[in-house]
Amino acid sequence: MAMVDLPAPPFSFPTTITLACDIDLNSTTDSATMRRFQFVNRNLYGDAASTQVVMRAVDGMDAHAAPRHKPSPFSREPAMPEFAIVRTVADLRAQVGAWKRSGQRVALVPTMGALHEGHLSLIALAKTRAERVVASVFVNPTQFGPNEDFDAYPRGEARDAELLAGAGCDLMFAPGVAEMYPQGFSTSISVTGVSEPLDGAARPGHFNGVATVVTKLLLQCGPDVAVFGEKDYQQLQVIKRLVRDLDIPVEIIGAPTSRLEDGLARSSRNAYLSEAEREVAGRMNLALSEAVRRLKAGESVERVEATGRAALERAGFQRIDYFEVRNADDLSHPGPGPWSGPGRVLAAAVIGKTRLIDNMAVE
Amino acid sequence: MAMVDLPAPPFSFPTTITLACDIDLNSTTDSATMRRFQFVNRNLYGDAASTQVVMRAVDGMDAHAAPRHKPSPFSREPAMPEFAIVRTVADLRAQVGAWKRSGQRVALVPTMGALHEGHLSLIALAKTRAERVVASVFVNPTQFGPNEDFDAYPRGEARDAELLAGAGCDLMFAPGVAEMYPQGFSTSISVTGVSEPLDGAARPGHFNGVATVVTKLLLQCGPDVAVFGEKDYQQLQVIKRLVRDLDIPVEIIGAPTSRLEDGLARSSRNAYLSEAEREVAGRMNLALSEAVRRLKAGESVERVEATGRAALERAGFQRIDYFEVRNADDLSHPGPGPWSGPGRVLAAAVIGKTRLIDNMAVE
Repeated sequence: MAMVDLPAPPFSFPTTITLACDIDLNSTTDSATMRRFQFVNRNLYGDAASTQVVMRAVDGMDAHAAPRHKPSPFSREPAMPEFAIVRTVADLRAQVGAWKRSGQRVALVPTMGALHEGHLSLIALAKTRAERVVASVFVNPTQFGPNEDFDAYPRGEARDAELLAGAGCDLMFAPGVAEMYPQGFSTSISVTGVSEPLDGAARPGHFNGVATVVTKLLLQCGPDVAVFGEKDYQQLQVIKRLVRDLDIPVEIIGAPTSRLEDGLARSSRNAYLSEAEREVAGRMNLALSEAVRRLKAGESVERVEATGRAALERAGFQRIDYFEVRNADDLSHPGPGPWSGPGRVLAAAVIGKTRLIDNMAVE
Repeated sequence: MAMVDLPAPPFSFPTTITLACDIDLNSTTDSATMRRFQFVNRNLYGDAASTQVVMRAVDGMDAHAAPRHKPSPFSREPAMPEFAIVRTVADLRAQVGAWKRSGQRVALVPTMGALHEGHLSLIALAKTRAERVVASVFVNPTQFGPNEDFDAYPRGEARDAELLAGAGCDLMFAPGVAEMYPQGFSTSISVTGVSEPLDGAARPGHFNGVATVVTKLLLQCGPDVAVFGEKDYQQLQVIKRLVRDLDIPVEIIGAPTSRLEDGLARSSRNAYLSEAEREVAGRMNLALSEAVRRLKAGESVERVEATGRAALERAGFQRIDYFEVRNADDLSHPGPGPWSGPGRVLAAAVIGKTRLIDNMAVE
């Protein structure tokens, strides 16, 4: 079963596109793929396109058999792509293995659920890089500190599944804690350097938990690419580092932070905010963009950081974990003087019971 | 390129076996594979068999092309299988990827070189589990302590390559330190529990180094199976644990310890021994088998361990790191009383400048 390239839109309607693929008529995967062909085609080209799907029977036991051509009429009903939920590594691997054997690239989008448009933008980016997209939904206990919000972290699997299916995700991997950490589990991955400052200092053990669970998810799924949001910029750098260091055969892609109208970075933790807190939260991104502006104008790193912290305090944040300028790659500190990047300004601060983080590029 | 099953020997000679495979006449890999076909066939069936190799040209761009049949005469000269040395992860993956795409299983045998018959027995076992065998040769600096024998560890790549080729290994992966640990390398894997007693206590940091480099080798190569000697029994258990915990998609196989005539476990470090030390070294295995006998006879764990330590001292070992009875899986201690396993008796002791380890099963 191989997918063929479609001609690039736009082109004039109405037209007929011929899709050719080898298909095993007895395979449910292939018959589902055929439905997906029609769906993808409809999304790409709109309803005005008429599609001719040409199926060619292939029989693995007799490669010399003459191909049978059998035209299939294009269904005008809106077709939904198939979407499934799996809960075990074995089921995940069976599905991903089938896709890879048929030559399809697979993308993984690891999430902790409580999905919002930010996550869906990761799915959308993943869809541009692979034929199949898997999203994992797992609230990983080992990356939460003892006084953090593991128990309170928002969960809603049915809604998550609905959002993923609607965004064109093919498979949701939603393992239980026992599937991820079976009895006797005793392995941990740590990354020095990039994981140490900022959230590494503020949340001891956090990045060990992240590094270990992300490595597991990558090795469980075996995707060609994996997409992580730049909203968790330090996490993204830790993951890039460990993937390089451990030679995990996957490409890591960072996706731009999705923002609300006032610039607040989308986060599952925004759900904790009262109306008054929501107002305050919206000022963190303003402090960050102001810091970028000042750095570009030649102001010293030391002064920009102090101004940023003061802005967060004035805005009403009750605790500021950090407001810092860092080198973009290794998150080392560039020193106190004027500096032009490439870098990142990163902030973490608490309002009420909610800890928010955000960051912006200095390019 | 697909290999076909040969009829199972024995059968009457002389006979003609027809091997059919799809082959790309422009591919050096496939032409090497063809030579290997002849070699494997010769090994399996002996010189009396005459072999007809049928090549069928395949052209990926035109699957409808009629197959061309071209008979190839069987060479009577003793054919050696192709053997190659690669030094980069990219080259390793290119070769392993080609084998896997053609449906061949791949086994990895990680070594630190200084090969002896013990290693070759791992290659032999690997060959029963996969069509292709890769051996890595890398003296990993991160698993040696500051006062250990990293610099003195025996090295001899040309001899290693010759032994591997002769044993039917297909590929030697011999990376340099910069390929394994590029600038900025900062990731470490640790396993608690099974890695903590015995060599974990005697060699701080050793198993972190082992866990990290073995994970890298497994992810660099991507084998179906990997073979490790039971001589390093605790290492084998650490690796089994981390492979399960991190979901590395590989089967780990332990191979029985290869022994010299007096029972001394084969080890690259035996090369350090003077003639007198060699005599002493040969008594460690006797102390271990005596301990197994006593346990089976109902003697207490406490007494068996004390007797074992005394036997090593009497034999002439200058320092005994441990002589202990342990549960086979998690290497926890079974307590002081009588005990029947399944377990393992493990010993480590120093003679002159050489530290030797060995172990035996209690079943």
